[in-house]
Amino acid sequence: MKRIGILTSGGDAPGMNAAIRAVTRRALDKGLEVFGINYGYAGLVAGDIFPLTASDVSDRIQRGGTFLYSARYPEFAKEEGQLKGIEQLKKFGIDALVVIGGDGSYHGALRLTEHGYNAVGLPGTIDNDIPYTDFTIGFDTAVTTVIESIDKIRDTATSHERTFVIEVMGRGAGDIALWSGVAGGAEEIVVPEREFDIAQVADRIKRGREKGKKHMLVVLAEGVMHADEFMEKLNEYGDFQARATVLGHVQRGGSPTARDRVLASKMGAYAVDLLEEGKGGVAIGIENNQLTYHNMLDLFDGKHKPDLDLYDLNKSLSR
Amino acid sequence: MKRIGILTSGGDAPGMNAAIRAVTRRALDKGLEVFGINYGYAGLVAGDIFPLTASDVSDRIQRGGTFLYSARYPEFAKEEGQLKGIEQLKKFGIDALVVIGGDGSYHGALRLTEHGYNAVGLPGTIDNDIPYTDFTIGFDTAVTTVIESIDKIRDTATSHERTFVIEVMGRGAGDIALWSGVAGGAEEIVVPEREFDIAQVADRIKRGREKGKKHMLVVLAEGVMHADEFMEKLNEYGDFQARATVLGHVQRGGSPTARDRVLASKMGAYAVDLLEEGKGGVAIGIENNQLTYHNMLDLFDGKHKPDLDLYDLNKSLSR
Amino acid sequence: MKRIGILTSGGDAPGMNAAIRAVTRRALDKGLEVFGINYGYAGLVAGDIFPLTASDVSDRIQRGGTFLYSARYPEFAKEEGQLKGIEQLKKFGIDALVVIGGDGSYHGALRLTEHGYNAVGLPGTIDNDIPYTDFTIGFDTAVTTVIESIDKIRDTATSHERTFVIEVMGRGAGDIALWSGVAGGAEEIVVPEREFDIAQVADRIKRGREKGKKHMLVVLAEGVMHADEFMEKLNEYGDFQARATVLGHVQRGGSPTARDRVLASKMGAYAVDLLEEGKGGVAIGIENNQLTYHNMLDLFDGKHKPDLDLYDLNKSLSR
Amino acid sequence: MKRIGILTSGGDAPGMNAAIRAVTRRALDKGLEVFGINYGYAGLVAGDIFPLTASDVSDRIQRGGTFLYSARYPEFAKEEGQLKGIEQLKKFGIDALVVIGGDGSYHGALRLTEHGYNAVGLPGTIDNDIPYTDFTIGFDTAVTTVIESIDKIRDTATSHERTFVIEVMGRGAGDIALWSGVAGGAEEIVVPEREFDIAQVADRIKRGREKGKKHMLVVLAEGVMHADEFMEKLNEYGDFQARATVLGHVQRGGSPTARDRVLASKMGAYAVDLLEEGKGGVAIGIENNQLTYHNMLDLFDGKHKPDLDLYDLNKSLSR
Repeated sequence: MKRIGILTSGGDAPGMNAAIRAVTRRALDKGLEVFGINYGYAGLVAGDIFPLTASDVSDRIQRGGTFLYSARYPEFAKEEGQLKGIEQLKKFGIDALVVIGGDGSYHGALRLTEHGYNAVGLPGTIDNDIPYTDFTIGFDTAVTTVIESIDKIRDTATSHERTFVIEVMGRGAGDIALWSGVAGGAEEIVVPEREFDIAQVADRIKRGREKGKKHMLVVLAEGVMHADEFMEKLNEYGDFQARATVLGHVQRGGSPTARDRVLASKMGAYAVDLLEEGKGGVAIGIENNQLTYHNMLDLFDGKHKPDLDLYDLNKSLSR
Repeated sequence: MKRIGILTSGGDAPGMNAAIRAVTRRALDKGLEVFGINYGYAGLVAGDIFPLTASDVSDRIQRGGTFLYSARYPEFAKEEGQLKGIEQLKKFGIDALVVIGGDGSYHGALRLTEHGYNAVGLPGTIDNDIPYTDFTIGFDTAVTTVIESIDKIRDTATSHERTFVIEVMGRGAGDIALWSGVAGGAEEIVVPEREFDIAQVADRIKRGREKGKKHMLVVLAEGVMHADEFMEKLNEYGDFQARATVLGHVQRGGSPTARDRVLASKMGAYAVDLLEEGKGGVAIGIENNQLTYHNMLDLFDGKHKPDLDLYDLNKSLSR
Repeated sequence: MKRIGILTSGGDAPGMNAAIRAVTRRALDKGLEVFGINYGYAGLVAGDIFPLTASDVSDRIQRGGTFLYSARYPEFAKEEGQLKGIEQLKKFGIDALVVIGGDGSYHGALRLTEHGYNAVGLPGTIDNDIPYTDFTIGFDTAVTTVIESIDKIRDTATSHERTFVIEVMGRGAGDIALWSGVAGGAEEIVVPEREFDIAQVADRIKRGREKGKKHMLVVLAEGVMHADEFMEKLNEYGDFQARATVLGHVQRGGSPTARDRVLASKMGAYAVDLLEEGKGGVAIGIENNQLTYHNMLDLFDGKHKPDLDLYDLNKSLSR
Repeated sequence: MKRIGILTSGGDAPGMNAAIRAVTRRALDKGLEVFGINYGYAGLVAGDIFPLTASDVSDRIQRGGTFLYSARYPEFAKEEGQLKGIEQLKKFGIDALVVIGGDGSYHGALRLTEHGYNAVGLPGTIDNDIPYTDFTIGFDTAVTTVIESIDKIRDTATSHERTFVIEVMGRGAGDIALWSGVAGGAEEIVVPEREFDIAQVADRIKRGREKGKKHMLVVLAEGVMHADEFMEKLNEYGDFQARATVLGHVQRGGSPTARDRVLASKMGAYAVDLLEEGKGGVAIGIENNQLTYHNMLDLFDGKHKPDLDLYDLNKSLSR
């Protein structure tokens, strides 16, 4: 192996730039050459590929988003698209690849590995919804952005003694809601992994008020329902002066936290090490604070497990 | 005058606590006594009134919201409500009042002044929509919160080369949109004070793309229309990969900026000085960097003028 | 066990308030009573003790410092001090204690346990220098504060093409330097756990400049030497336009990060659970992402191990 | 006039990039060409000059520092240096210049104007120490950075009931100390413009403690003396558990605040307008919220006046 390509795919996540930097610097440190591929698989097929030097990734570790851009490209699911991509790899002399993105982007990586181009996947998504890793790159930053918003909303909630329903990202996974709910001191966390009863929520809010609680914050994962819908259902049980707010796209951006930068740096370096050992078709994770890797096929069968202890913890702390 | 009361009214704004602190400390420094009134006019009528010491307002200057709470209380528009309030002022021996809030809350203050209880108003609202002041307490913090969000959204917008429609607060006034649009480097600012043509917006976005712009940010004041509606109209003119986001209630909260803390401190101290001079029925402003005051009647007739030079400035800078 | 006391001891750390909240709420949820003890062991001996309700710890999770105050109190090392403390525990009917602080504060906790008052320790210190835990409460926030400073200094370093020596906290342990060095993209990390050669550092800086590096950041743990001294030694090897800066006390304060809030919440609840099981003289840790506890005697013999892989990682990423 | 050059000179300040962007975009909008000059006057003499396009200044408004770099270059004080610079202006066909920096950098601008190359100065410095302007570009951001630090230090000061002496930038001018002292709720502000008596400071701290103040914060401008020296003097009057901290270089960096971005945008555009009107040898200011300009000769004779009302205000609010 002499030349590594890097691409980012799917939704952008804070820390992707830190991962690109780590892959680039580690590879250069080992005497390899590195090429950046713009716009994910779309750029691979189109040949939007260019050499990366050490200084190209300077002053990037702290930036949100991905300077290699990202794009959806469903055409890569078909063999025709893959073969075009391989043609470009040949043309640029790229032997191996690092793919940073959600597990959807691992399918393409696995196909390339099967065609003889080892590809290693890095979990880059704010949703934390990838199997065999406790944390994804970008998750800690997203939670941080959410709690900064919750801290601001709490000011208003307290000043007006109101109930706020705060919708956070997480279509399939409640991780952002669980972490930011506990860290934000929410009275209720509503996630797809646990059933909830709106009458009980209303009841808890009422009891909270009677106890003198100045604010009631409900953190709601978008996968359950829309914040407006939740608020309407809630209002059937009483006048809670409730307000709904959807935090939206701010959750994807921002300078990565220290945790995300360190995680991305570790994983990026490890990806190069694995490629050097001839590994391919594997995805990197962090489990019990140790770097691990698993066959991508196992990931497609696996299921991410959110830390539901946080759900129960919050029940006892939000009384 | 021996005893001053303070209340906050209407929507909460960052810097209200700094203003309460300044009123309290200045009054104590002049040998006066100070009483806090919870929940605005509602608390005045209910007698939810308590003495404030210097240490009660310690460690408050940096907190968002208002620790005196705020509440809507339309009943105070009627004389019956006012008389109940005056009864409480008598009971607690309060001679004069500082009212912090939007100009809606000045009506009550004017009535109390007419009944012999001098009241001075401080402009506390994030919207900056009060006549005879260049800035209101809370506005700078709200703009700061908005540009932090814009900076985050820009990461994603750039990574995916998308157009974002970002709805910010400001029902009647475009100030937040104007300031955050210029400071956020938005391609378009849409405010109630200026007409706009969606076809032209679409055209500018197209031309921006052709010139290689990686992102297009439209900052939209809520008073114009909802972000979703704007996005739908925009999509009639082409595929802009547009996303709409409503920043919502986070704009009201958060630790006040240095500017808002200093402005609130100056205005709070000045309010006590004016009361000491026997002034009442007046509202404080900052005009051309100088503290001023105007009769509240003039404010009700007046109209806030946003800095529309910013609109024109942005046109030439967003090319 | 019916009544739990809580105190914070040693240097304050962000997340201590979140831990106090968690202990209080969990204990109340289990039907126990909770008492706060001000000023650490000094307040215990003086009887500065008061009941804590659920609402006393409301709106605390996001605050830096400790609302129970902290103080040094070497007198508690002697039995005389301990007996006075026990008298107070008897007087207030407190059966068991949670002590939040560095491992120095565990000695007192162990003595109380030996006298029949079970005490559980929580690792609250920004330095991360406690054995048998991967992370202490406050460490993540301190690292976050440091990288925010590094990100700011990098602006100036780049604009003027200068070398900066940034001294961070950590007398005995290099953890803050290691994490913030990697996350801040430092060119050099200097920690007590690894030898360094100033001539080599100077050489690396020179080579970096030749390669076109716009800035050189050296992150230095205070335990090694003072930043000014380091800079002087460096200047013997050439003109690096070096500047030294000591981040200082800001590293102790600030609103805790999401990680620290969640860690403090988990540990605080776990402390109550352990006390309920009759455990005492033990300290809680998080190891490989799992909550654990160890006998305090083992901690006194143990030695904290920083993640020195980060040191080697940084060598290959800072080229 | 067809072609404008831009350079930044002296210490970097947040908002310089926003100013460069505004100059560039405004000039392009008027059909002019724009050239960036790296490293201030040093780069002018060396011919380190390159064309700037609209997209070169994209995504810059939010960045700290200056992407045109800055450097000291005393050689430009001599005519020889100036003539070399003029040679380069001729070579690149540059007719006029915008110089962003402290008033020291205006001397070179005036010389160039005298040689027939109109130059307009923009006040870019965190110190706010330039005559004929109420605010300089970068000042608001520096104050913001300082109060974020003060807010963090207050956590520790409160938790341990300590006195902190916080040294902030400002060699000749006390502006940063005045604004951040008021905004940070400091008990004492010490600036070069006002005499102080250390015995009185000590006395005020003592009285504060007796009144139950949990913390005492002294904000000290570096121009008065070093924080350590102040602390030592203070300790002669009693045991204040005082700690000294020097905020240092972080004050120069960071993403500019909304205020600084708007101010830089306004001033940058105005500079182009003035050049177009044939003005040269003038410096732009903002006075009483209006853009103004003055002959540079007047600035050299003038003296910056800090807002000392803030000093007196703080006396009455910190009781």
